[in-house]
Amino acid sequence: MKASQFFVSTYKEAPADAEVVSHKLMIRAGLIRRVSAGIYTYMPMGLRVLHKVAAIVREEMNRAGAVELSMPLVQPGELWQETGRFEKMGPELLRLKDRHGRDFVMQPTSEEVVTDIARSELRSYKQLPVNLYQIQTKFRDERRPRFGLMRGREFIMKDAYSFDKDKAGAQASYQIMREAYSRIFDRFGLRYRAVAADSGAIGGDLSEEFQVIAATGEDAIIYCPGSDYAANIEKAEAAAPSRPRSAPGQPLAKTPTPGKSTCADVADLLSIPLRTTVKSLVLATDTLDEQGAITGSQVWLLLLRGDHDMNEVKVGKVPGLDQGFRFATEAEIIEHFGAKPGYLGPIGLQKPVRIIADREVAVLGDWVCGANEVDFHYTGVNWGRDLPEPELVADIRNVVAGDPSPDGQGELAIERGIEIGHIFYLGTKYSKAMEATFLDESGKPSFFEMGCYGIGVTRLPAAAIEQNHDERGIIWPDAIAPFTVVVCPIGMDRSEAVREAAEALHAQLAQAGVDVILDDRGERPGAMFADWELIGVPHRVVISDRNLKEGQFEYQHRRQESPQKVSSGNIMAFLKEQGVG
Amino acid sequence: MKASQFFVSTYKEAPADAEVVSHKLMIRAGLIRRVSAGIYTYMPMGLRVLHKVAAIVREEMNRAGAVELSMPLVQPGELWQETGRFEKMGPELLRLKDRHGRDFVMQPTSEEVVTDIARSELRSYKQLPVNLYQIQTKFRDERRPRFGLMRGREFIMKDAYSFDKDKAGAQASYQIMREAYSRIFDRFGLRYRAVAADSGAIGGDLSEEFQVIAATGEDAIIYCPGSDYAANIEKAEAAAPSRPRSAPGQPLAKTPTPGKSTCADVADLLSIPLRTTVKSLVLATDTLDEQGAITGSQVWLLLLRGDHDMNEVKVGKVPGLDQGFRFATEAEIIEHFGAKPGYLGPIGLQKPVRIIADREVAVLGDWVCGANEVDFHYTGVNWGRDLPEPELVADIRNVVAGDPSPDGQGELAIERGIEIGHIFYLGTKYSKAMEATFLDESGKPSFFEMGCYGIGVTRLPAAAIEQNHDERGIIWPDAIAPFTVVVCPIGMDRSEAVREAAEALHAQLAQAGVDVILDDRGERPGAMFADWELIGVPHRVVISDRNLKEGQFEYQHRRQESPQKVSSGNIMAFLKEQGVG
Repeated sequence: MKASQFFVSTYKEAPADAEVVSHKLMIRAGLIRRVSAGIYTYMPMGLRVLHKVAAIVREEMNRAGAVELSMPLVQPGELWQETGRFEKMGPELLRLKDRHGRDFVMQPTSEEVVTDIARSELRSYKQLPVNLYQIQTKFRDERRPRFGLMRGREFIMKDAYSFDKDKAGAQASYQIMREAYSRIFDRFGLRYRAVAADSGAIGGDLSEEFQVIAATGEDAIIYCPGSDYAANIEKAEAAAPSRPRSAPGQPLAKTPTPGKSTCADVADLLSIPLRTTVKSLVLATDTLDEQGAITGSQVWLLLLRGDHDMNEVKVGKVPGLDQGFRFATEAEIIEHFGAKPGYLGPIGLQKPVRIIADREVAVLGDWVCGANEVDFHYTGVNWGRDLPEPELVADIRNVVAGDPSPDGQGELAIERGIEIGHIFYLGTKYSKAMEATFLDESGKPSFFEMGCYGIGVTRLPAAAIEQNHDERGIIWPDAIAPFTVVVCPIGMDRSEAVREAAEALHAQLAQAGVDVILDDRGERPGAMFADWELIGVPHRVVISDRNLKEGQFEYQHRRQESPQKVSSGNIMAFLKEQGVG
Repeated sequence: MKASQFFVSTYKEAPADAEVVSHKLMIRAGLIRRVSAGIYTYMPMGLRVLHKVAAIVREEMNRAGAVELSMPLVQPGELWQETGRFEKMGPELLRLKDRHGRDFVMQPTSEEVVTDIARSELRSYKQLPVNLYQIQTKFRDERRPRFGLMRGREFIMKDAYSFDKDKAGAQASYQIMREAYSRIFDRFGLRYRAVAADSGAIGGDLSEEFQVIAATGEDAIIYCPGSDYAANIEKAEAAAPSRPRSAPGQPLAKTPTPGKSTCADVADLLSIPLRTTVKSLVLATDTLDEQGAITGSQVWLLLLRGDHDMNEVKVGKVPGLDQGFRFATEAEIIEHFGAKPGYLGPIGLQKPVRIIADREVAVLGDWVCGANEVDFHYTGVNWGRDLPEPELVADIRNVVAGDPSPDGQGELAIERGIEIGHIFYLGTKYSKAMEATFLDESGKPSFFEMGCYGIGVTRLPAAAIEQNHDERGIIWPDAIAPFTVVVCPIGMDRSEAVREAAEALHAQLAQAGVDVILDDRGERPGAMFADWELIGVPHRVVISDRNLKEGQFEYQHRRQESPQKVSSGNIMAFLKEQGVG
């Protein structure tokens, strides 16, 4: 490809609304162009990246036995009513009406349509397993689209759906996808982790996110450097403390802590470690009658160490809280504790509450908590002596760096990640809702066991950039670079020798199947180099009269600080050594 | 590919709503699956065809110097308001609102977005010409979607847009696209014609449709067997008659024609050729004031030979009718002619009307027309003698087979076609509406000269089927067949020799880059053959124990009625002779 025949468009400045580096660089490098909030044109340079991402995904999905189809973007509301998602989903589901006033949605995913296909096309267990996928535009009407392709409204996703005759089959399909995803992300040339994720209402352990490691990532990834253990923060288990509860050493004492309503302030005031303080979180659950009216409420007190944070997903699995919970109102708090938030604790309650202690709180001795009286805390609190043993001890906190790994292989570490893939065992959630059955070995109708598997095709380049960039611009991994090699001739318009050498190298590389671009735009060297460094082409060959006289080209990898001379006769072999072609 | 790992789904019956053969066969062969009216899932077998179509289009567009990008499906209403299309377009433009109530449209084409890109990205004449294209989903909310992919609501189109600095450049870009389209349609292996089309309000001759020839086509294509001349019916010029007007031979006579209100009936009654009768069509134009209220109307009488039909496009170019016209009301007709339709004519008017005669009517002598009196016609009518010469003589009729070709190279013929491509010189229509300018050689802002170029990617397979099918199913041209070769083993589950030979041939063909499918589903031969004949794979190799013993396979092209034996050792060379691989 010659640059004069392509569409190279770079900007010195990023738009004001670009908050993250990938958004800034994708706009500046001319990869994307904003059309509306969260809606972009994929410009020629960006589309090349997307095509490469899609090709790798397609190849590996096919290799894994999945079969590609393409479901429509505009889907009839009736199908979405069968699963209840037409009503249940929030306004991120874009609903629309056609000219006859019939309801449609723009697909955010395609469970309904694919399950409809399965229930009529897959009639016998003999046809199973089947895994159907598409690489297709999706729409989610995000309230606040931002970060460029990271959280857009119109985007491209690879979504796959597996259909099996039983749970064992679904688990095998899941594992096949897990391996395919690993091959896919290996090929992208990105640092990533597969992390265990919570599988929500469906339960079980079959849900993993594929996270591209990047300091700017939105997600916290927990991993054990000494083992394979990795999970997202929602899922990562805080191992049960192996040490016994510390024996009481102090008397219970009501201690003035004027104006100190946070654990950190109290620890400071008392010169004690934050980890010996305990914070009180007050939740409530409601009992409803058949009409959905509230007939009664229960107040819960959660006790966490001052240096720990509550994990809502884990709390949502505690018996009694697993049907939904809310934070208690101030009125409820005062009614039960006789005090306002800031000085709450489990001793001296006005009315009974149900108490859940985090595992780490349950092994504390001589701890500190609010005294249910403004400006006072209890110190030297001990279970059994000063208050009854907790009703329930559970893992209800986020892990922190340094916690023991649940697999006993060392301490947990935390890094940031960007979710670019998710694999998920669905069970019979959709097949039951849509009465999608096949005839099993005994000739009886049986619900499909399903899984779903997504990859954010348009998000992936953004994640790649968050992980791979410097102050000059993007640094693409070879596999998804818009071009692998750029040939930069200096003074092509003045020097016939430079022109000939540049065109010969361009032709030779193209012939060898290398994705090469020759910059024949006639830009000055500084501007030319800046463009390609911004765009992030990984390999650059500069051809100048001065070096040509010595029979040499200049090569520089995008990650290198300075060029090296390479004999022009040896350039193809040299590039091959760099992994090109 | 092995059929057991693919998704083969065929039906014996077509759905009741399938009216045309391509729709029936695409459903029966499992290429597409209806999701809603005019909205389909492209099933695995169908998607393979679409991918091949898209790949050929992409290759040739790139070869022609066009650059691919991808514009969003959901486009902001503001852009469409700039050109006025947001209001002007009918309900086939699907309008929708996002969660914030802002207006959006689903793209039916992308002139607005691409012109917006040009006006900010293309700043200088030095960057021109540029041709940007996408292969992308479109939506048109057709009132009556039908014929499967032939007239769907959601469909895939390749749309390209060229930007030039002047009209000569735009014409050159148009010619480049014309040549690219010819290469594309040549490669598809379809019989097609490029036909001149009317370019509407923009004028000029730069608009051509690419029509796949098919007896079931919706469009009439006019062509000259002796030359390159081809045009659609709207555009095809009826050459001016070369003969002079016939001299009067009969007296003018008012002749009773009771109950004969059509030219055909009158010709029958009087035993005269239909071509000597003249029909009267009454139109009206309105004069509007600044508020759009009608301030006056003008009635027009169009005279056409009884064997000819009016051509609305041509009529719309007649001076005075070129700002819009309507058929006259019955009240207007009675006011001006003193008679109801059926017996109208240009002689004996109650009030003056403007008379336009088709060129063929202008050279008639002794013709017949209505007498403006029920149940009477005039015979022996002659211009100049019985009524004044017509105010205007123009080509206002559709051509008919046998008319002289406008290029003088013989007589016109008519066949049916399906429009699958359209290339169009747009001029400055969109660039002016959107104030899209670049700086020309003298440094002054100048409007882009544009062209647009479409190919119906999803319609093309339907057109291919309309052209290529028989009672057994589809007959794909090799280039766009879902698979090029199907290997059909007979009794693969019983015979190790058959299995080995089939798998070896499958591997050998796949290795050679041939798109081959091995039917390992274990179907009986009859069902297996019927499936692949329905699906339309062009080349079939059957492997059976009986033939294997003689060292032979059976080959049959989809167009052949019976198989031929081919030595198994020679099969690759034989297939190559058939154009495979």
